[in-house]
Parts: sequence; C-alpha cells; structure tokens
Amino acid sequence: MAHINLAQDVPGIRSLVMYRPDTGKPLYELAQILLREDSPLSQAERELIATYVSSRNDCTFCTSSHAAAARYLYKDEAQTVDLVLDDYQNSPISDKLKALLTIAGNVQKDARTVSEENVALARSFGATDRDIHDTVLIAATFCMFNRYVDGLATLTPTDADTYAMMGERMGTLGYIPPKL
Amino acid sequence: MAHINLAQDVPGIRSLVMYRPDTGKPLYELAQILLREDSPLSQAERELIATYVSSRNDCTFCTSSHAAAARYLYKDEAQTVDLVLDDYQNSPISDKLKALLTIAGNVQKDARTVSEENVALARSFGATDRDIHDTVLIAATFCMFNRYVDGLATLTPTDADTYAMMGERMGTLGYIPPKL
Repeated sequence: MAHINLAQDVPGIRSLVMYRPDTGKPLYELAQILLREDSPLSQAERELIATYVSSRNDCTFCTSSHAAAARYLYKDEAQTVDLVLDDYQNSPISDKLKALLTIAGNVQKDARTVSEENVALARSFGATDRDIHDTVLIAATFCMFNRYVDGLATLTPTDADTYAMMGERMGTLGYIPPKL
Repeated sequence: MAHINLAQDVPGIRSLVMYRPDTGKPLYELAQILLREDSPLSQAERELIATYVSSRNDCTFCTSSHAAAARYLYKDEAQTVDLVLDDYQNSPISDKLKALLTIAGNVQKDARTVSEENVALARSFGATDRDIHDTVLIAATFCMFNRYVDGLATLTPTDADTYAMMGERMGTLGYIPPKL
C-alpha cells in the first residue's frame, strides 16, 4: 500500500501526478521533451537509457514500463532491451550507445564518477555534446522518477500485459498527464 | 572543466539551462512550484531538505547554493542550517522536520527503504500526506539536480560570497531561468 492516500488502482507516476497535478505538469513536460522531442539519440535509445538506469535503481515500475516502451520502439529488435539489461557490453547495440550507458551508469551511482575517459570514449565513437548532455539528463531524471515512485510506495502492477499496453501508449502518444 | 561546451563563467544548473533551454524550462518550473509555491512546509524547511539531500550526494554547488537560500530564509536562525548538516537529530529543528529528513535521507540512499515506521513517526509529530509527498519529491528532485550538475562537471564557485548572493536571489526572486 502506498505511504499516502492515492487514487486506487492507478499505478506508479500517474497516481502521483493525479495527487499533485501542479508538480506533475512540469514532470510530464520534461519527460516528453527529453524522451520524445529533438535529440541526436533515437526515441528507442533514450527509452533504453531510462530503462537501464531504472533497473540499476531496482525500480520495478519504471524498469518494466520503459522497457516495454523501448521494446515497442525497437520493433523487430525487441530482444535488444533484454540483452542490454542482462549485459550491455555484450549486447547488439552500437559502441557509442555502450559508452553512453557507461556514463548513465556512473550518473546513477555517483555523478562525480563520470570521468574524462568515459566522455572521451563516447566521443571516439561519434558522440556529440548533445548525446552526452541528453544521456546525463535522462539518467539524472530517472534517478528522480525512480525515487518519487518508490519513495511513496506507489502501486506496481505485476503482469506483463499491463506493461506492454503502457509501453505501446508511451511509444505512440508519448507523455501526457492523466485527465483529472 | 565541464564535459561539454557550456557558457564560460556561468556556474552549475544555470549553464545547463542556457545550453538546453527547452528542458531547462520545466526544470525551473518544477523548482519554483515545489520550493516556493503552496506547501505545508515553509520555504526555509523545503530549502533545508534540498540542502540536506544535496550534501548527502556530495554536490558542492547545490549544497552551497541551497544552504545559502535556507540561511537567508531562516533569517536570525541562520545557524540552523549548519547544525542540521552537522547532525540533524541533535539540531534545533522540530521533531516533525527531523522525521521528514530521515525520509529524505532514505529517498536519497534507496527510495525503497522508506518504511512504514519512517512514515508513522513523521505522522506522530503531525506530518500530513502533503508533508510526506513534498518531502519525497524534493528529495527525489535534488537527486536529479545534483546528478545533472555533477555528471557534466559544471563550474562550481568556491567563495562563500558568491553563494550568499545566490541564496539571497533564490530567497527573494525564486527560480527564474536565466535570460537568453
């Protein structure tokens, strides 16, 4: 049960945005701009970074929902997501994305550990300032969402179908606050 | 030196918002709503929670600037901030705020460790759902800002006067994105 009185049967972040819509609005705007609008990283890659960081924070709701969005966006390469979560260094993604995931992992653990070497490696595979910026901000943002969702013990669905539906909605409609 | 090409001589979060204003806008809106607008927690208390979380993340820029804002807002009780950072359980703050700082600390460390006992203790000292919600969201939000600022190695001033000026601006004008 959640630590505060939230709408029944509404999972994760949506229950919190319904509880306090005025803070929910900039949170959804941030997610929409960062994960769906202009970036050198594809939407699938950005969802993969969000998923990876959420899995490192052991946030079941965010990991499952963003993994579902990434699977939807990767389409025929659906297995990519699971292979990355299992062992990204040996997964079928680009060297650039591997180097960016290393940066994201360091942001999750302790952001001061993002090193010049981490950044130089990403650049050697073609990463630009914007790739590096967006990776760090996505990782930081999910360290927030993960904590918001788990710190208040929000409802976490357990069935794969629910997340698959969420993932399709996130992959098609993007991030729209719940109707109030 | 920062990991990406940012405006020279502009510190911390401001340099990042100048670099990418479209994500900066919801970030500043979130800070303004969460730290300045409606809450059962005073502005000083909210800045103190932000400072405490930033200090646990060892983020010098956020700790120093929000400590300065909290000192400005506490006015004659300026020492409160330093006593809280040193040992909040033995500092001259309310039992309710101590219990909320314990929750904030757990959110910072691993949000899944926020326990029913943590929440019950805060409630026994008068904390409401909104106190608990706002504490968790402030703690989560600063886990983001700290990582954004440090993950890109932004400029961190070292002199106390610079932070005192920032604190006064944050305490009077609030959170307004830099003019571009």
